[in-house]
Amino acid sequence: MPPELVAAIEAIAALPGIGRRSAMRIAFDLVRQGPLRVKNFTTALTDLSEHIATCSRCGAYVSRTHEREQCSYCDGVRRSHDTLCIVEQSADIYAVENTGEHHGLYHVLGGVLSPLDGVGPDELKIPQLVERVRTLAIKEAIVATNPSVEGNATGHYIADQLKPLGVRVTRIATGLALGQMLDYAETQAISQSLRQRVEL
Amino acid sequence: MPPELVAAIEAIAALPGIGRRSAMRIAFDLVRQGPLRVKNFTTALTDLSEHIATCSRCGAYVSRTHEREQCSYCDGVRRSHDTLCIVEQSADIYAVENTGEHHGLYHVLGGVLSPLDGVGPDELKIPQLVERVRTLAIKEAIVATNPSVEGNATGHYIADQLKPLGVRVTRIATGLALGQMLDYAETQAISQSLRQRVEL
Repeated sequence: MPPELVAAIEAIAALPGIGRRSAMRIAFDLVRQGPLRVKNFTTALTDLSEHIATCSRCGAYVSRTHEREQCSYCDGVRRSHDTLCIVEQSADIYAVENTGEHHGLYHVLGGVLSPLDGVGPDELKIPQLVERVRTLAIKEAIVATNPSVEGNATGHYIADQLKPLGVRVTRIATGLALGQMLDYAETQAISQSLRQRVEL
Repeated sequence: MPPELVAAIEAIAALPGIGRRSAMRIAFDLVRQGPLRVKNFTTALTDLSEHIATCSRCGAYVSRTHEREQCSYCDGVRRSHDTLCIVEQSADIYAVENTGEHHGLYHVLGGVLSPLDGVGPDELKIPQLVERVRTLAIKEAIVATNPSVEGNATGHYIADQLKPLGVRVTRIATGLALGQMLDYAETQAISQSLRQRVEL
C-alpha cells in the first residue's frame, strides 16, 4: 500500500467513532473523488479550526470572521437573561438548544471537577461563573453537566457556590442513564430531564 | 451555530458511512484538537489525493512521489507472473491481498459491465486485459469481481474473451452473499472463496 494511503487511513481512523475498516472506505472514497473535492473538504476543516473561537463570556462556539466577536446567546435580544444553563463543553450547548426548552444564557465549564486528575474549580470556568451570576441578574442557574459521578459532584459544588448569592440552582433530571454522554443522548430525553429538573 | 461549524459538519457527513451525529462529534473533536493537529490531518488527506495515482498497467494504487512510477505487484520480483486476479476497483486489491492466497498479478477493470448505464467493455479496462493476457504468459485469470448480478455477468463476458487465448479462467466462489461488497467482506470469507474458485 502506498505510504500516503497508509498515512491517510491512520489519520482518519484516529477520529472518534471511526474504525479501521471505515477509515479505509473513506480514504478510498477520497481518492476516487479526486484532488478538487478533497481540497473543498480540507478547506472546510481548516476554516473550522482557524475561524472558530469560543465566546469570552459564556464559552459557546463563535465565528472569528466577524469584525467583533458576537455570541448569539450572550447578545441574543430574544434570550431571557435571568436563566443560565451550565454545561461541560461548548458542544453540549447544541444538545440543549435542540430541545427548545431553554431560552436563556449559557456557561461552559470546560470539564468537570476531578481532584485525582488535578482538575479543581480554578481549572474550570467556575470563578468566572460565580462572577457572571453575581454581575448579571440571574434568577436560576440550571446545572446541565453529564449525569456521571463527576458531573453530579461538580453540580453540587456549583450549588454551594451560587446559593449564597440568592440564586435558585437546579439540576437537569437524570432521566439519562448514569454515564451516558449528553451530546449523544436523544433530544427528547434531554428535553424531559430539563423539564424535570430538581432543586439542588 | 457558526457557519464554519455547519459547513464542516456537512462536509464530514458526506463521507461514506458517517451519519450526522457522528459528523458533529468529529467536528467538535477537530475544534478541540486545534489548528495544528487539523493541519496534520488535512495534509495527510491532501497528500493522499495529490500523490496517489494508479499503475498504468494493472490499475493498482501507486505513489507518485517516486521518480519512476513503480507498482509493487507488476514489478514485484517475488510475485508469480502467470496468475492474474481481476477486480473491479483498485481498493479491492487490498481485500484480496489480505487473504494471502493470491501471489500473482492484478488487473483493475474500473467497474462492471452495465449496458443500461452505457458501460460496455470499452468503458472498462477489458481491451487492456485481453492485451495483457495475450502479451504476458498468463496461465490462469481469476475473476474476483463482486458477487452481484453485474459482477457475475462481467465475469462470464471476460471468460468468453480470454478462453480463446488458451488461458484458464476461474471465478472466486460465491461464498459471499449476493450483493455483498468485496471491500467490506471478512478476509476469511474472501480467502475461502479464492480457494473454492470454480472453472468458468
